[in-house]
Amino acid sequence: LSNTVEQFKESIFSTMTKMAIENKAINLSQGFPDFDGPKWVIDLASKAMNENKNQYAPSMGILPLREAIAHNYKRFYDFTVNPLSEVVVTTGATEAIFCTCMGILNPGDEVIVLEPFYDSYLASIQLAGAKVVPVTLKAPNFNFDIEELKAAVTSKTKLLIVNNPHNPTGKVFTAEEIEVIGNLARENDFYILSDEVYEFLTFGVDHKPTATYGDLANRTITISSTGKTFGLTGWKIGWAIGPAHIIKAIHNVHQFSTFAVSQPFQWAMAEALVKMDEYLVEFKADYLRKRNLLISGLKECGFNVSNPQGTYFAMAFLPEGENDVDYCKKLIVEKKVATIPTSAFYIKSDEGTKMIRFCFAKKDETLEAALANLK
Amino acid sequence: LSNTVEQFKESIFSTMTKMAIENKAINLSQGFPDFDGPKWVIDLASKAMNENKNQYAPSMGILPLREAIAHNYKRFYDFTVNPLSEVVVTTGATEAIFCTCMGILNPGDEVIVLEPFYDSYLASIQLAGAKVVPVTLKAPNFNFDIEELKAAVTSKTKLLIVNNPHNPTGKVFTAEEIEVIGNLARENDFYILSDEVYEFLTFGVDHKPTATYGDLANRTITISSTGKTFGLTGWKIGWAIGPAHIIKAIHNVHQFSTFAVSQPFQWAMAEALVKMDEYLVEFKADYLRKRNLLISGLKECGFNVSNPQGTYFAMAFLPEGENDVDYCKKLIVEKKVATIPTSAFYIKSDEGTKMIRFCFAKKDETLEAALANLK
Ligand SMILES: CSCCC(=O)C(=O)O
Ligand SMILES: CSCCC(=O)C(=O)O
Repeated sequence: LSNTVEQFKESIFSTMTKMAIENKAINLSQGFPDFDGPKWVIDLASKAMNENKNQYAPSMGILPLREAIAHNYKRFYDFTVNPLSEVVVTTGATEAIFCTCMGILNPGDEVIVLEPFYDSYLASIQLAGAKVVPVTLKAPNFNFDIEELKAAVTSKTKLLIVNNPHNPTGKVFTAEEIEVIGNLARENDFYILSDEVYEFLTFGVDHKPTATYGDLANRTITISSTGKTFGLTGWKIGWAIGPAHIIKAIHNVHQFSTFAVSQPFQWAMAEALVKMDEYLVEFKADYLRKRNLLISGLKECGFNVSNPQGTYFAMAFLPEGENDVDYCKKLIVEKKVATIPTSAFYIKSDEGTKMIRFCFAKKDETLEAALANLK
Repeated sequence: LSNTVEQFKESIFSTMTKMAIENKAINLSQGFPDFDGPKWVIDLASKAMNENKNQYAPSMGILPLREAIAHNYKRFYDFTVNPLSEVVVTTGATEAIFCTCMGILNPGDEVIVLEPFYDSYLASIQLAGAKVVPVTLKAPNFNFDIEELKAAVTSKTKLLIVNNPHNPTGKVFTAEEIEVIGNLARENDFYILSDEVYEFLTFGVDHKPTATYGDLANRTITISSTGKTFGLTGWKIGWAIGPAHIIKAIHNVHQFSTFAVSQPFQWAMAEALVKMDEYLVEFKADYLRKRNLLISGLKECGFNVSNPQGTYFAMAFLPEGENDVDYCKKLIVEKKVATIPTSAFYIKSDEGTKMIRFCFAKKDETLEAALANLK
């Protein structure tokens, strides 16, 4: 069997969700809502299925969806994207990340990742035969040390991956931080993969895609999806946006990794994306309320929690002497609340052992029940 | 960008479908029905969406679908599969093929493929850094030369890929042929990937999975999907079946290539697979009729056509001096009928230049209209 693949462990999200189910615990681990996505979007998918949209989609994605995606980047961020050549639709953001790594990297290339990071980054880089170079975001504010970041760049650096808003920390990078990354990329001629799946989940700050900073669109692959935004994580509609020659390479992988994405959901999302404005207002209000409910509740329980500016996650810093994995186990077994041990997001620093991640993409009742258990 | 990926060309199926649309030609190229899948299966997907099945599925696939798949292998082929450890659900058979190659192969390994072959095999093997060793099936019967096959095996042979029923030739391998392959695999200790997506599309012969020959289940990865069987190619529900340790490796790739497969379609298929018997009778009768309609029609038009025993494809052998690519172009432009030039399925032999492939997964009217154009 493949030596690279044999070293892979089960995704931490699968592990924790399974443990939650086994222990009948409230699942605040894996990031998905326990309430359903909007009925009108579900109805759009049923409509598409009943209108014969059930065969292979074009491998790049149906044009109306690529147009809707481009339309939204224009109206939300004043960012011009050519739907014909600069967008490819993928099986969720995960496949976009994977195909970007496989499409860009050669064995021996180096990729800078800011840890803590989403677990698929590591696997995607390793499957492409490239080397992961971690730079640690320092708790409690999760800033990077500029000198440390500069020192991580070598002549082999091909790509830097930034996740903004940032899972698991809830950090939204400042314009200055993105500029530092952008300048390094320009000076050392590397690409940036900007994973922006939580783009509509920010609290009190605005999201600004990395590609909209100066000329960074020339070297940035923007990845996002509809899973988080519409609360339909199981539909797996994502995309990558970038310069045409890079999208061509990403599509070259995609056409042989999965060939095409579920056609009915593409039609539903093509319509939903252009009609989402009203929904978005409610969505943002709901998540702000859920965030505040969880944060204040955890504080009342005595947790030392972060103040997430984005995503639907909050970090709790554990008391001295506690370890994240043991602590999570204890919470699941004794308090019937499942969270994520954050050491799974680190490979260099041991800071992850001192934190756990809570997901607040849950019904208010679920959050309240979890808080009651934790008290 | 990745050197491997930069060499990839657009999938021949995308190219020809685009040319068909541009030329307003009847599309008998890419393999998908121009009629819709069963309404009752579509309704099952709508039902699942309205019953909150819209979040991430488990990465292995929902258990009821894995159970339904195992159930069918038992009742159709008397083949016992453990749904907990020996099945992984993938984004169509394409992702199963891809994850199998990435999960099994190391750089330098060799993979024997019987050409002509489905174009994703080559890309999947190359992305894993392994070497493709082609053995040509000889027209017009598409048998392999046993000595040639034996000579292709080396100490580096890790995998052999067989597609049965076979796209594009319509061949169903005989028990003797599978035994030859199986014995070679046993003697030289390599794996077999058996791509059986056309398992229910056979005419006058029965399908027998490679894994059911003697002890071959120990070294065979069986890949299939619901796309062809239910005429819902755009839903992208496939799977890989094999020994638990191999499925673990395949799943290790899958969890980072796409993580999980569309949940609503998994529920629909979990139910459809166990209730498909009546549908299957009609399905087989319909396809037999379509096959005969196309074959006899093409013969009347003067084509020298194969007699496919399986799949929904037929091969036409071109008159001396003609070339497949030019001939396909001529048919699209002048006769408004799109087919596939079969040289795209070969890398060693030039036999493909002498044939084109017709797809008969089309309404009777479509086939009749195409035949009228060709006359
Ligand atoms: C693909 S499962 C992971 C969901 C998620 O984004 C998270 O929990 O971080
Ligand atoms: C994934 S598109 C190819 C469809 C097909 O199986 C074929 O035309 O051979």
